[in-house]
Amino acid sequence: MMTTGLFITFEGGEGAGKTTILNQVYEELTARGIEVIKTREPGGIRISEKIREIIHDPLHLEMEERTEALLYAAARRQHLVEKVFPALEQGKIVLCDRFVDSSLVYQGYARGIGVDEVYAINQFVIEDCMPDTTFYFDISPKKGLERISANADREKNRLDLETLEFHEKVYEGYQLIRSRFPERFQTVDADRSLEAVYQDVLERITALFNK
Amino acid sequence: MMTTGLFITFEGGEGAGKTTILNQVYEELTARGIEVIKTREPGGIRISEKIREIIHDPLHLEMEERTEALLYAAARRQHLVEKVFPALEQGKIVLCDRFVDSSLVYQGYARGIGVDEVYAINQFVIEDCMPDTTFYFDISPKKGLERISANADREKNRLDLETLEFHEKVYEGYQLIRSRFPERFQTVDADRSLEAVYQDVLERITALFNK
Repeated sequence: MMTTGLFITFEGGEGAGKTTILNQVYEELTARGIEVIKTREPGGIRISEKIREIIHDPLHLEMEERTEALLYAAARRQHLVEKVFPALEQGKIVLCDRFVDSSLVYQGYARGIGVDEVYAINQFVIEDCMPDTTFYFDISPKKGLERISANADREKNRLDLETLEFHEKVYEGYQLIRSRFPERFQTVDADRSLEAVYQDVLERITALFNK
Repeated sequence: MMTTGLFITFEGGEGAGKTTILNQVYEELTARGIEVIKTREPGGIRISEKIREIIHDPLHLEMEERTEALLYAAARRQHLVEKVFPALEQGKIVLCDRFVDSSLVYQGYARGIGVDEVYAINQFVIEDCMPDTTFYFDISPKKGLERISANADREKNRLDLETLEFHEKVYEGYQLIRSRFPERFQTVDADRSLEAVYQDVLERITALFNK
């Protein structure tokens, strides 16, 4: 596949500010007339949404972890094919909130399936279209969780409710993955004001497409 | 995983007689008091059946081939975990109508995704629990299709309606896969009367658990 766009993913633990910053960057780039889309899986893609319904059905207590990993992979594939690949082929910037590294960290490392195993099925999904750049929002699990608790508006999701121990495992996982893909990863110090983090990320993204 | 049972799969193109023979062997072994189960994916497993519904929904024309392969893999995993692994752990014989080789042949080879690619996601699914023995029902695509057309009772499925050219590709694919796993495969000449094929397969299966 030939793509001329720029595929940028945002990664990190809970409460790191990823989604907020992504939205701000998207608004700013759009205001500047730059061709950019923002997305997160399943991203309104019909088949991907249906797959997510199976994963999230509270009745499916018997769902095994590898089944779940394959369903996430299937939903990811269809989202890529219908939404990300076409945008990249049109030369757009794609900002994606969580992607392959979340699977490697949460399923592969923190849940214990194995990073190599989860990477293997993701290579089948992504083929040669790995993100060009991944911004890793670095904040200690404890501080991230404090931010979440302080934010009364935020809807608590299943991951927010995991124990601190689990979030520390996620943090460890990100360190591992980051060291595995040093050329793709850019680490952002997320333990600053949102405004400071936003300016930092915006500058770095602008540098990417001004190259 | 430690298993003491015997995992036997039946493979081959359409009209080779696999399902008929599998049912007969199952009846005979059961009558002899042998602990045996028969299955085929999705095999009544709730999550697997729901995944199949997504695959087979006629509205899902946009489903991409790798998404489909991952959904088949997910359904396979849950069927294995809930039905096959427990039976094998209880020391039972499991007769399964089509399994990993059908994915390698139909999706990997005939549809062109790539045998190695489809094998990689299946290794994630199966781990170290590949079939102990696979009976390959060998019949020319032309003869297989003639058998199907002659059988008015048989409900035509989507694969039955593919072109002869596609079935020839499937035949080629089986030759390739068979040569890749020579120790696991046993080839059965399916171009004989059902009775002759049945006696042949029954003898070979009996030999497997009398070893």
